[in-house]
Amino acid sequence: MFNHNKRLQYTVRVSETNPALANLLLEQFGGPQGELAAAMRYFTQALAEEDAGRKDMLLDIATEELSHLEVIGSLVAMLNRGAKGRLAEAIDSEAELFRSLQGAGNDSHVTQVLFGGGPALINSAGVPFSGAYVDSIGEPTADLRSNIAAEARAKIVYERLIHVTEDPGVKDALTFLMTREIAHQKSFEKALYSMDKSFPPGKLPGDPQFTDVYVNASRGEGDTTGPWCEGKDFSKVIVPDDDNLPVDGGDGLASVTLAGKEKQAVEAFAVRGASDPARDPITGADLGTLQQEPKE
Amino acid sequence: MFNHNKRLQYTVRVSETNPALANLLLEQFGGPQGELAAAMRYFTQALAEEDAGRKDMLLDIATEELSHLEVIGSLVAMLNRGAKGRLAEAIDSEAELFRSLQGAGNDSHVTQVLFGGGPALINSAGVPFSGAYVDSIGEPTADLRSNIAAEARAKIVYERLIHVTEDPGVKDALTFLMTREIAHQKSFEKALYSMDKSFPPGKLPGDPQFTDVYVNASRGEGDTTGPWCEGKDFSKVIVPDDDNLPVDGGDGLASVTLAGKEKQAVEAFAVRGASDPARDPITGADLGTLQQEPKE
Amino acid sequence: MFNHNKRLQYTVRVSETNPALANLLLEQFGGPQGELAAAMRYFTQALAEEDAGRKDMLLDIATEELSHLEVIGSLVAMLNRGAKGRLAEAIDSEAELFRSLQGAGNDSHVTQVLFGGGPALINSAGVPFSGAYVDSIGEPTADLRSNIAAEARAKIVYERLIHVTEDPGVKDALTFLMTREIAHQKSFEKALYSMDKSFPPGKLPGDPQFTDVYVNASRGEGDTTGPWCEGKDFSKVIVPDDDNLPVDGGDGLASVTLAGKEKQAVEAFAVRGASDPARDPITGADLGTLQQEPKE
Amino acid sequence: MFNHNKRLQYTVRVSETNPALANLLLEQFGGPQGELAAAMRYFTQALAEEDAGRKDMLLDIATEELSHLEVIGSLVAMLNRGAKGRLAEAIDSEAELFRSLQGAGNDSHVTQVLFGGGPALINSAGVPFSGAYVDSIGEPTADLRSNIAAEARAKIVYERLIHVTEDPGVKDALTFLMTREIAHQKSFEKALYSMDKSFPPGKLPGDPQFTDVYVNASRGEGDTTGPWCEGKDFSKVIVPDDDNLPVDGGDGLASVTLAGKEKQAVEAFAVRGASDPARDPITGADLGTLQQEPKE
Amino acid sequence: MFNHNKRLQYTVRVSETNPALANLLLEQFGGPQGELAAAMRYFTQALAEEDAGRKDMLLDIATEELSHLEVIGSLVAMLNRGAKGRLAEAIDSEAELFRSLQGAGNDSHVTQVLFGGGPALINSAGVPFSGAYVDSIGEPTADLRSNIAAEARAKIVYERLIHVTEDPGVKDALTFLMTREIAHQKSFEKALYSMDKSFPPGKLPGDPQFTDVYVNASRGEGDTTGPWCEGKDFSKVIVPDDDNLPVDGGDGLASVTLAGKEKQAVEAFAVRGASDPARDPITGADLGTLQQEPKE
Amino acid sequence: MFNHNKRLQYTVRVSETNPALANLLLEQFGGPQGELAAAMRYFTQALAEEDAGRKDMLLDIATEELSHLEVIGSLVAMLNRGAKGRLAEAIDSEAELFRSLQGAGNDSHVTQVLFGGGPALINSAGVPFSGAYVDSIGEPTADLRSNIAAEARAKIVYERLIHVTEDPGVKDALTFLMTREIAHQKSFEKALYSMDKSFPPGKLPGDPQFTDVYVNASRGEGDTTGPWCEGKDFSKVIVPDDDNLPVDGGDGLASVTLAGKEKQAVEAFAVRGASDPARDPITGADLGTLQQEPKE
Repeated sequence: MFNHNKRLQYTVRVSETNPALANLLLEQFGGPQGELAAAMRYFTQALAEEDAGRKDMLLDIATEELSHLEVIGSLVAMLNRGAKGRLAEAIDSEAELFRSLQGAGNDSHVTQVLFGGGPALINSAGVPFSGAYVDSIGEPTADLRSNIAAEARAKIVYERLIHVTEDPGVKDALTFLMTREIAHQKSFEKALYSMDKSFPPGKLPGDPQFTDVYVNASRGEGDTTGPWCEGKDFSKVIVPDDDNLPVDGGDGLASVTLAGKEKQAVEAFAVRGASDPARDPITGADLGTLQQEPKE
Repeated sequence: MFNHNKRLQYTVRVSETNPALANLLLEQFGGPQGELAAAMRYFTQALAEEDAGRKDMLLDIATEELSHLEVIGSLVAMLNRGAKGRLAEAIDSEAELFRSLQGAGNDSHVTQVLFGGGPALINSAGVPFSGAYVDSIGEPTADLRSNIAAEARAKIVYERLIHVTEDPGVKDALTFLMTREIAHQKSFEKALYSMDKSFPPGKLPGDPQFTDVYVNASRGEGDTTGPWCEGKDFSKVIVPDDDNLPVDGGDGLASVTLAGKEKQAVEAFAVRGASDPARDPITGADLGTLQQEPKE
Repeated sequence: MFNHNKRLQYTVRVSETNPALANLLLEQFGGPQGELAAAMRYFTQALAEEDAGRKDMLLDIATEELSHLEVIGSLVAMLNRGAKGRLAEAIDSEAELFRSLQGAGNDSHVTQVLFGGGPALINSAGVPFSGAYVDSIGEPTADLRSNIAAEARAKIVYERLIHVTEDPGVKDALTFLMTREIAHQKSFEKALYSMDKSFPPGKLPGDPQFTDVYVNASRGEGDTTGPWCEGKDFSKVIVPDDDNLPVDGGDGLASVTLAGKEKQAVEAFAVRGASDPARDPITGADLGTLQQEPKE
Repeated sequence: MFNHNKRLQYTVRVSETNPALANLLLEQFGGPQGELAAAMRYFTQALAEEDAGRKDMLLDIATEELSHLEVIGSLVAMLNRGAKGRLAEAIDSEAELFRSLQGAGNDSHVTQVLFGGGPALINSAGVPFSGAYVDSIGEPTADLRSNIAAEARAKIVYERLIHVTEDPGVKDALTFLMTREIAHQKSFEKALYSMDKSFPPGKLPGDPQFTDVYVNASRGEGDTTGPWCEGKDFSKVIVPDDDNLPVDGGDGLASVTLAGKEKQAVEAFAVRGASDPARDPITGADLGTLQQEPKE
Repeated sequence: MFNHNKRLQYTVRVSETNPALANLLLEQFGGPQGELAAAMRYFTQALAEEDAGRKDMLLDIATEELSHLEVIGSLVAMLNRGAKGRLAEAIDSEAELFRSLQGAGNDSHVTQVLFGGGPALINSAGVPFSGAYVDSIGEPTADLRSNIAAEARAKIVYERLIHVTEDPGVKDALTFLMTREIAHQKSFEKALYSMDKSFPPGKLPGDPQFTDVYVNASRGEGDTTGPWCEGKDFSKVIVPDDDNLPVDGGDGLASVTLAGKEKQAVEAFAVRGASDPARDPITGADLGTLQQEPKE
Repeated sequence: MFNHNKRLQYTVRVSETNPALANLLLEQFGGPQGELAAAMRYFTQALAEEDAGRKDMLLDIATEELSHLEVIGSLVAMLNRGAKGRLAEAIDSEAELFRSLQGAGNDSHVTQVLFGGGPALINSAGVPFSGAYVDSIGEPTADLRSNIAAEARAKIVYERLIHVTEDPGVKDALTFLMTREIAHQKSFEKALYSMDKSFPPGKLPGDPQFTDVYVNASRGEGDTTGPWCEGKDFSKVIVPDDDNLPVDGGDGLASVTLAGKEKQAVEAFAVRGASDPARDPITGADLGTLQQEPKE
């Protein structure tokens, strides 16, 4: 069970009202690389985890991410607080409030008009948080890699936000949050390589005919090589053309065996929709180009 | 520019109509771990890539994933083909068609009724593909990790599909597709470690006070340790309680400096919405519990 | 900051594997009336709340709802655990696993194939959780009513789940969760009526011409009356027809004053797109009905 | 069946082109608190309603909300009309049109470029309307509360829009629309309390052990009391800690009885994915930190 | 303004409870080709329409589509009515209700458990209605074609539903609704060709170099010809290969002129992220393959 | 299978950094009328197509649209390239970067902060691409009309973008892309009218009672006539009022035959939720209006 301590993990000190900055920070509140996505990624993994050590780690980090959600949400609330008051109480004229709303810029009007200045489960574009941001699939060799990647992405978005933040208190808090993503990435890396075997992920081996092959599907000036297509891991580079397509030696077509009634139905469907390549018909485009007569 | 060769990368041979299996395969057509997500992940990265080697690799793999989209989509089309004909031409009675639609099970009714048996940009639940599945963020130290994780997840979903597929031709094609995810993961791993430095991701270092700290936020029976919280990478474990919250030594509160007019507005807002803790009011719940009088 | 105690708020005892029941329970995990929506509804309100009493209450209840998310998620994980193992390890034949997946029914295939049996941020249809489920707007007279309504809805969905659950341990836990929604509704009711004035919500009064009017816009057999259209609160019933439309005494049209250049542009646009009612043209439908000639 | 009278319920008089204001108004056209959401909320309830009086009321109000959708949509169309003409006919230079598009601000570029100035089913952020905004669940004791809350929220969003609108004709129409939300809220309140019993909502009573309990899950400075946690409705306050977790007296763990084969499969899965806490492995982060050798 | 007549446009007579059929019908209630999408497509076009005749037609048809929404929604409500009662009142045992929910099949559990049997703004997969289904863009030469296509799609989905419906009253109503789509398509065809010129759509002509060219981008066995690539409308077929790429005679590359500081920044970014093709590094995949030592 | 040639179909030459223009162009990358939607519309149709000619055409055009996706994505990448470098490397001060982000305007902050300047699968509002943009339904008489309409819409959005673009290289590329939509529309028109019969779409005829009827559902000033409601195609205009509702001569009501137990359950449900029209109850609105007493 969760408990909540009214103190934040990191103190939030904001110098002045700045709804546009607040809106950018929503990226890490309700955005795809944000703290709710992180918390839920680890929390959902934890609940179904079979390994005691990983389960504990996932719960620790999920709980910390919820606490980061609180920090970033508090930053948003403080940056919007003055603007919220002004709009709610209408202590300025309509013209002034409209100018002020427009002047703040980016998508901050959404937070003001729709959400009344509170932190909302949206990203900086106003797009609602989606459960689809959480890519947990219940297999540790995949989920730990997803977690590592997610921490890396979150770290970068914080970095960008720090680059555009002048307010020292906000910058401090963002730096703390960014730093913790680094620490979490380290934990997930450790957990991944504490397993006996994590590659290939899962249980089934690949088909040895195709695991060491690189397919050079994009060609022309700019074609290069590197360890990702030759060297230790790759025994063969295929250029997919008429000579080697399909790779299985078949006819490269798609086919299905149809039962009698199905065959008959598919044929009827095909006949009904057949196009006649020998016709060059008048079309709607023609009708739309030529002036037609008014009715008599 | 893309070109298309009418031969598939891998021949598709389906033994019999099976709309339910078709529906499961949609997971890898329009689902979050599917081939379109993969193709678009690499393609969008490629277009903005500054490194010639990575750009080439991303275009190679994006192009191959589009070709896998074609293979999986062809499997879906073939598995549905007989059912499509029967429903479109109504060669059976309504009762029989209804039974057959119901009998196929899982969400195959969506493909039949809404999409006419064609491969649709949905997953096996009928949820439309979302651009949010693509987690490219334009920074190679994060994107390559996202790609590695995505390949691992896709590999696992193929594995699960293979586990429930009896049709040998379908199983072969799925095994080929699964294998290629392993090969792609290897390429992305090589590309990641071909960089001089990929950790911490991005440009900014973390705050050294907090990079080596582990926060033990979930406690009780089941608390464990491992390399993810102690050892080489972690110098300190914090239990976040009244003694060490917040971690920055401040008051742990959220505050903002408000300009004069803002302060006044926020106070007016607070007063207007103040709750009176000294009151124990009659509520709507009370009104809903007690029988009220009919109007005389 | 949040802390986590490894003990659940309510013990989860599941009698046997039941992926279909697990899938139904997802409605309260990642669905619109579920525990994450509830937790986030109150948490986002709390962060921007100006009233100390309400802020505390919102944090208490948000934290409890997160703990309920853990209970319902644990129920899902346990109900799926056996099926997860079977699919991951493929200890049965493909045919048996396919039958078992199909046999479980409703949308449980999504949880198995895509999510590996873990609780996912989806509802029972497989639709991802959306931030749009959270209807907090930052004004207490509205938000408290939203909370009351949300608790009522959640209570009902639990009731329906209880009605279809045979497993005694699951039923017990669901009954606990349902009961807490009742308690939370009472708290929100108290908070709403602890305010000096909560109706009309917000700051602006209505226009007295239209606050006491009922518009009888649907008429015919089945037209009834009741306190919602006549009596203490309603001074007038309007039947909106030619005699009283519009209600403001104007012309009932939409108009705008256009600047010179705008007027000219709109006219050019109108001319370019004008339809000629005097023409009865040949159309694409005609072309599609009549057989056209093959090209010579 | 619906009929339409070409006169609006309220005359729309717009003083001048203002695409930015138009965009803000979209919040009440295609946004979560907007008129389509309202109309559909009541309309879907009406179709399944068993009570003749409520059904009539729901149809009356749904029909009026559709008419409000028309008013707000007409406001949007008029505010955009001049800009639509200019962009469609390109009577200005590209530079001027670009500046004018940028200058209008907020998300008005979406309406101009994608929707050609027409009212679109999006909110002010450009997010498409979602059926998820409609929280009808087919149980009157919940739905009426949802309706009351929805009217309160809509009232507030109108209030905010009025606060930023200078155009007198627009302000008038918005005031009318806002006022009607007050009237509708009154109707729904009357309908709710015209039922014999509406609390607890639905049919099942709560478990008496937990209906009168308040859980003080958030603690520290700022902990308060009020009627929402003590007084008439609450007999007990619980602080959830090791002493009283779980509340049911069990072990607070999640468990399931697995069938023989399931048990074996889950164990195999656990073994395959076991982490070794005794290892402190080299990780990908390490590889990314240390410079690696070029190949020979 | 809208008015509502309590009589339906077409009488709804349902023979017996059938939640699965109800769920399929939701495709035309809240699905992409359904009646709400249709009504909103025409209604949003009407509000911004400059041509009096088209505006009137759009309002007529929008209003009729709302009335069709009522018919299809009433069908859904009636087909679910018995099941709704059983679940709400729990007059059967839990086991029986669970079996009955499972037995109904397809996604009908969503309507029962989440929506209490009412018609919901979802499609047959449980996916919420989206404003993105409405493809109006405010230009008649495009919108009328969208309307024609939408009516064609809706007609087909009705046809499929009719093919699986045994209940004569339901079949009758569906046939009526399907027929009206044909009539509407005719109206939109007439409106399109009543314009002086509707092709090419909009104002700008195409570049004559590329309007009559067909690009044969997919080649191999199965390459065909027909009037869509040769004949009256096409003067040239291009096979896009090294000989004619790009079509503009340039270098086929993407380039941008960067300002001095930008150039320097992009170079710094490129250097920081450069990959070294000469290295064949140890990777995370390697670490995951090889057994690592436990910490001593 | 797809292959990729590193040369673009049309050379991309961008004069200077312009993130706001880049953001507008995203409409055609990840937006509803954009190139990915187009490519996927035709590709999904192709895979299930039974007619050899159409299948080839669909693959040709799908492949070309993917190549257009590459062109438009490259435009986006080039327009953002300078800004990407500046933000990633932070070569300016925070204040300057914030100003520059704000100054670019529209939703370009999303591309910068979340996506690092790369082309993302979003539209110009930041809304993720949705599979719901693809309206293929597997029936050629509908799909070809959808394709015609989609090309018309895409042409218009390009036209609008051209109208606001000053950069000559960008304008050229957009003009090329726009022109190709015209050519594609011609191909689809030819394919539609190469079928023997494409109207009414699909297999079932309409009910002759209702195919030639026009329903004048919107009336009042502004009521007009034209070929869309009278003339060759329409034999009758109905004004839907009490005299002719419903059109089938029934009672215009919705009814269902309930089995015994169902009837009893529905009645119990109705009784439990009955409203009493004879009561004029005190409501929550009343409680919220009147000052309540503090608890003594």
